[in-house]
Amino acid sequence: MNVGVLGVGITKFGERWDQGLRELLLDAQIKSLKDANIEAKDIDSLYNGNMGAGPLSGQLHIGAMATENLNIDKPSVRVEGACASGSLALRAGIEAIESGVAEIVQVNGVEKMTDVDTGQATTMLMGAGDEELEGFNGLTFPGLYALLANAYMHKYPKLTRDLLAEVSVKNHFHGARNDYCQFKKEITIDTVKNSTMVADPLTLFDCSPITDGAASIILTSESKAKELGAKVSIIGSGLATDTLSLARRNTLTAIPAGKKAAESAYAQAKIKSTDINLAEVHDCFTIAEIMAVEALGLAKEGEGYKLYQNKDTYFDGRIPINTSGGLKACGHPVGATGVKQAIEITMQLQGRAKGRQVENAKIGVTHNVGGSGATACVHVFKKVK
Amino acid sequence: MNVGVLGVGITKFGERWDQGLRELLLDAQIKSLKDANIEAKDIDSLYNGNMGAGPLSGQLHIGAMATENLNIDKPSVRVEGACASGSLALRAGIEAIESGVAEIVQVNGVEKMTDVDTGQATTMLMGAGDEELEGFNGLTFPGLYALLANAYMHKYPKLTRDLLAEVSVKNHFHGARNDYCQFKKEITIDTVKNSTMVADPLTLFDCSPITDGAASIILTSESKAKELGAKVSIIGSGLATDTLSLARRNTLTAIPAGKKAAESAYAQAKIKSTDINLAEVHDCFTIAEIMAVEALGLAKEGEGYKLYQNKDTYFDGRIPINTSGGLKACGHPVGATGVKQAIEITMQLQGRAKGRQVENAKIGVTHNVGGSGATACVHVFKKVK
Repeated sequence: MNVGVLGVGITKFGERWDQGLRELLLDAQIKSLKDANIEAKDIDSLYNGNMGAGPLSGQLHIGAMATENLNIDKPSVRVEGACASGSLALRAGIEAIESGVAEIVQVNGVEKMTDVDTGQATTMLMGAGDEELEGFNGLTFPGLYALLANAYMHKYPKLTRDLLAEVSVKNHFHGARNDYCQFKKEITIDTVKNSTMVADPLTLFDCSPITDGAASIILTSESKAKELGAKVSIIGSGLATDTLSLARRNTLTAIPAGKKAAESAYAQAKIKSTDINLAEVHDCFTIAEIMAVEALGLAKEGEGYKLYQNKDTYFDGRIPINTSGGLKACGHPVGATGVKQAIEITMQLQGRAKGRQVENAKIGVTHNVGGSGATACVHVFKKVK
Repeated sequence: MNVGVLGVGITKFGERWDQGLRELLLDAQIKSLKDANIEAKDIDSLYNGNMGAGPLSGQLHIGAMATENLNIDKPSVRVEGACASGSLALRAGIEAIESGVAEIVQVNGVEKMTDVDTGQATTMLMGAGDEELEGFNGLTFPGLYALLANAYMHKYPKLTRDLLAEVSVKNHFHGARNDYCQFKKEITIDTVKNSTMVADPLTLFDCSPITDGAASIILTSESKAKELGAKVSIIGSGLATDTLSLARRNTLTAIPAGKKAAESAYAQAKIKSTDINLAEVHDCFTIAEIMAVEALGLAKEGEGYKLYQNKDTYFDGRIPINTSGGLKACGHPVGATGVKQAIEITMQLQGRAKGRQVENAKIGVTHNVGGSGATACVHVFKKVK
């Protein structure tokens, strides 16, 4: 598999009361077109990741909104898999190119979450879990991940509270160096530990925020990418699913779909985990990042904590993780997150990640999760020589 | 393009208070597997059409629900484009097979609409239009299609009230002969004209109902289809978009996206409109069927009424339309409708449409619309010799 990345565009993430759903999407779309140096009419198909616009804005049918924004009448669909929607749109765009249906594809992700109160957003997000078994009985996403954190830390006590907090500290350190980030602010382990308890052991600073934002990426076929001199290729795509509810899950100390998606993507890309130079992973909660690095094979199961003992995951460390600031600091506009991850890796491989640039990176990976692990999607990016 | 149809499964459409979202989906999934004579583990990928489960059931992430239902961990995503979601899932499944990502795909569509009051369902459906320009200002879908009907009947007065009503009469005639249909009941032109006014000129019997239901279809590659002896192939897929709102649309007397999607699908299938033996079209309102037959090139623009003067569109007529009963009589569980259309055409081409069988049909077409025409998707099916 080889699909070229022609251009990327992203809005500032945050509480964007200055722009609505449509305007955020348009802003990212225009930026990716400009970055790719193509016109809207050059796009053959559009794939759009969005999770919550139905419940939150009363607006479904985001595919048609994306083409209306560009005044074109091309095929355009919305793809949804909860918080993995952005990656699923990316994968759908790749499938379109690989099938020959399209030569140039625009993949967008957008979410407008701050126009409603936090309770309404939290209720919408619970649609990623099992409404009958979990939501109806009062569970929320912080609650679900707290169950995972407790199970994990009981089995693997070497993941201390301080090391868990270090995930958030590192992501804020990166976020402070990223202009499109929601919280450009460094924090300490004490900031995390002393913040409001949300769901024991997870405090406010263990949790990713509610965010508005949009991200857009232009993909093309291998031959067209060569012709236009694209500097980054996507060489592997893996997707796996699992039960919606934790109650039906085989394990609470790992996210098996993440591991399966990674194995599938690596096999397609013909790489091993040791070939990976950096990754953007799904840290919706700090514990999720620990499980993510293990799923990606960057640490053995139960040993993820080791990466957080010696600043290995900082942008100038051995295996940089979430140089964008991750979901925690950069923000988590759910449908946009998977596309943002792809953009951050692309910018790193292109040498455009000013202030947080990873040196000599050749292979980057994105890891995006839906729900408490019911969907996981992994993509492998390669710098073109 | 050539993708084989291996099997189909559909639930009874209607007010299904005996089954929830998950059970309806499972029922259809099991039926298509059985019909295809394959096991769940044989499926490589799943594509799932659903529009309203987020707003109506608090359940997003339908992709993972579909794999959980079958106890498999394969790639599975939800695809949404309002009332065209089912066709978009079908098209995504086709793209996956054509790209080589998957050899056997299950495409599902599901909607659970009757657990909420009609007002809540109507509000959700308005998410298919433009929330800011239309929904916020009080328009509903019957209102939007009434605007189209008035504009059309003003420009083309030969479409009389009686001929418009005949669309519904014919669809109920077909529906009365279809076991999975919501309203198995014949009606007369007077039934339509004397029913409650919904949005002038559309009365209750001009409008498709609120419906629960699910539909499932198994697709495979051309070579695998040959090996397994599939009797029906999909040979063309067209998708086009337009503005979300009618206010921004270039015309109110046609649905241009439908025409564009048809042209694109016919070109791929290498057929002309005169090659078509039957079609399932998107009659969410009676006026929509008139615009649909024109978009498909079965009548010239403004002359769709002619097909309804002489029973041409009955199952034993010259060009049978909506032998399933259409959205009007068969029911319109929105995310399932596009898949149901594909199933009806498949069953017709296989000679399994007992009681409404079209004789000697070789080419059948499905036409599925999202919103008031912002998305239109057309597929061409061929009987394999």
